[in-house]
Amino acid sequence: MQHIDTYRSLFLDYLKNFIVDKEPNTLYKPIAYILHLQGKRLRPVLTLMTSEIFNTDPKKALDAALAIEVFHNFSLVHDDIMDAAPLRRGAQTVHQKWDLNTAILSGDAMLILAYQLFENYDATTFQALAKLFSTTALQVCEGQQYDVDFETQKDVSVAQYIQMIEYKTAVLVGAAMQMGAIIAKASLLDQKRIYEFGKNLGIAFQLQDDYLDAFGDQATFGKQVGGDILENKKTYLYIKALAFSSEEEKKVLTSLFANKDNVIDKVARVKALFLSSGSVAATKQAIEIYTQKAFSTLDTLAISKQAKQHLQAFGMQLMNRTI
Amino acid sequence: MQHIDTYRSLFLDYLKNFIVDKEPNTLYKPIAYILHLQGKRLRPVLTLMTSEIFNTDPKKALDAALAIEVFHNFSLVHDDIMDAAPLRRGAQTVHQKWDLNTAILSGDAMLILAYQLFENYDATTFQALAKLFSTTALQVCEGQQYDVDFETQKDVSVAQYIQMIEYKTAVLVGAAMQMGAIIAKASLLDQKRIYEFGKNLGIAFQLQDDYLDAFGDQATFGKQVGGDILENKKTYLYIKALAFSSEEEKKVLTSLFANKDNVIDKVARVKALFLSSGSVAATKQAIEIYTQKAFSTLDTLAISKQAKQHLQAFGMQLMNRTI
Repeated sequence: MQHIDTYRSLFLDYLKNFIVDKEPNTLYKPIAYILHLQGKRLRPVLTLMTSEIFNTDPKKALDAALAIEVFHNFSLVHDDIMDAAPLRRGAQTVHQKWDLNTAILSGDAMLILAYQLFENYDATTFQALAKLFSTTALQVCEGQQYDVDFETQKDVSVAQYIQMIEYKTAVLVGAAMQMGAIIAKASLLDQKRIYEFGKNLGIAFQLQDDYLDAFGDQATFGKQVGGDILENKKTYLYIKALAFSSEEEKKVLTSLFANKDNVIDKVARVKALFLSSGSVAATKQAIEIYTQKAFSTLDTLAISKQAKQHLQAFGMQLMNRTI
Repeated sequence: MQHIDTYRSLFLDYLKNFIVDKEPNTLYKPIAYILHLQGKRLRPVLTLMTSEIFNTDPKKALDAALAIEVFHNFSLVHDDIMDAAPLRRGAQTVHQKWDLNTAILSGDAMLILAYQLFENYDATTFQALAKLFSTTALQVCEGQQYDVDFETQKDVSVAQYIQMIEYKTAVLVGAAMQMGAIIAKASLLDQKRIYEFGKNLGIAFQLQDDYLDAFGDQATFGKQVGGDILENKKTYLYIKALAFSSEEEKKVLTSLFANKDNVIDKVARVKALFLSSGSVAATKQAIEIYTQKAFSTLDTLAISKQAKQHLQAFGMQLMNRTI
C-alpha cells in the first residue's frame, strides 16, 4: 500500500497529458482550466487506492480515476452556474471567467469525455464501468435537483435530506472506489461492499461539512464559516434543530431563516439554537453512525488485514480533515 | 422494407413508455415535455430503417433509436438556452417554460439517459454503440462551439463552415444510421459506408436548409423565411457571396450584415446579392454534390437492390422536403 500523496502524484502526472491544445480551444481551454485548479483529488485517489487494495496495479485504474475527476468537475461547472457562484477553489468559476454559454457547452463536453475514458478497457469492463457511471451520474443530477427543490420546499425531512446528500455527494465516492474494484476484477460482492464503504463515508463527510460550516475553525475550514446559515440552507443541523425545538424556538429559527438580508447576529443566534436544541449533538451522532457503518463493511471484505487498516486509517484521516 | 410512417409509429409507441412519473419530477417533467413535442423523428426512424436494411428486426434497434432522439433533444434544450430562443416547434422552450437551472440540469440528465439506453445490448455491441455515440456527441458540441465562435469571427472559410455543419448536424444523421448497422452486425466496412451516406445527406440537407431559409416558400418552410439574414448568420450563401463579390459589393454586403437593427429592405437586398454574385448557383451545386456523394456510397453497400432503391428514394424525399 502506498501513501495518499503517491497516488495523487500518479494521478496528477496522468492529468497533465489530458486534452492539450485541442480545437476549438474556446471549448477545451475552459475544460483544461477547471481541471487544473488546485484540488485534493480525493475521488481519483480513491479509485487508484482501491485497485491496489484488490491487488491490481493502480496505473490500470488511471483512466477510470480521470473519468471520475472529469465528471466531478463537470458537475462543479454546471452547479456553479446554478448557484451563481463567482469563485471556485479561490479562482474564478468558468461562467464568470468566460460566459454562460461556454460553461454550459464545456460542461457538456466534459460529461462525454468522462465516458470516453472508459474506452481503453475491454468490452466487459467498459460496460460495467459505464453502467455504474451512468447510474451514479444520474443520481448526482437528481441530488442537485433535490438540493434546488429544497430551497423553496417548506418541510424537508431528515430522510429526504440524507437522500439528497447521498445522491449529490456520497454515491460518487462509492462509485470511485467500486471502479477501482471493477478494474481489479474483484467479486461483485466485494465491489458492492467497497461501494457501501465509500458511500457511507461520503455521507459522514458531508454531514461533517455541514457541521464545520457552522462550527468549524475559520483558519482551517477553507470556506466562510457560517455561510450555510447566511444562505438559509436547510442542512442537517437546521432540520434537526426544527425537529427538536419548541413551537416558540421554531418560530424564532424559521423567522431567522425567512430572509437573506443580514439579520444582526444571525450566525451567532442560529448557532446558539443549534446547540441548545440538541441538534449539534444529533449531527455529531449521525456523523459517528455513518462513519461506523462504513468501517463495519470493511470487516466483511476479502482483502488483507493491512489493506483494511489502510482504509480505516484513510477514513479516520478524512474525518479529521487532515487530508 | 416498410414505409417511414411505420417506423415512426413503432418509435412513438416505444417513446410513450419512456420515463413516466420518475422522481424528482422537477427534473423529469421537462424531459418528458421536450421529448413529446411534435417532431419528424427523422433520426430514430433512420436507425430503425437501417437495422432492417441489414436484415435485422427494427424492434432490436429501438433503444439505440431512442438514445439518438434523447441526445438530439438534449442538444436542443442546451442550444435553446445559448440562442435565448423562446420557442421550439411552436411550443415554449424548456428554459422559458421552467427556468435556466432546470434546462441545464434536465439537459444533463438526458445526456446520461441516452447512454443508459445502450445497456440492454450485449457488452460488445454496447461498447461499439457507446464509442460511436461519444465521438459523435463530442463533435456535436464542437460544432455548436464553432457556430458560436463564427458569430464574432471575421472571416469564415467554406471549409470551416462545412466542418461546422458536418459536426453540428450531419454526424448525428450518420451515427443514427451506423447504429442500426451495428445492431444488425453489419461489417465494419458497411457500417462506415452507411455512416458516410447519412453524413453526406445530412450536409446536403443542412445546405438546403440555408438555401430555403432565404429562398424558401413561407407557406411550406416552417421557419421565418429570411431569418438567417436578419440575424446576420454566416451561412454558405453568405460566405460564397463574399468570395464571389467585387470589393464594392463586398462592402455593401458586410455593411448590411454589420448590425442587427432592421435595415430597410435588408432581406430583399441581401437576396439580390446572393443571386447576382453567383452564390445561389454555387449553393445549389454544393447541395447536389453532397447528395450525389451520399448516393454514390450506396452502390458499394452489401445490401439488396431493393434496399438501395429504398434508401435512394428516402434521400430524394428528404431533399424534396416532403418527409
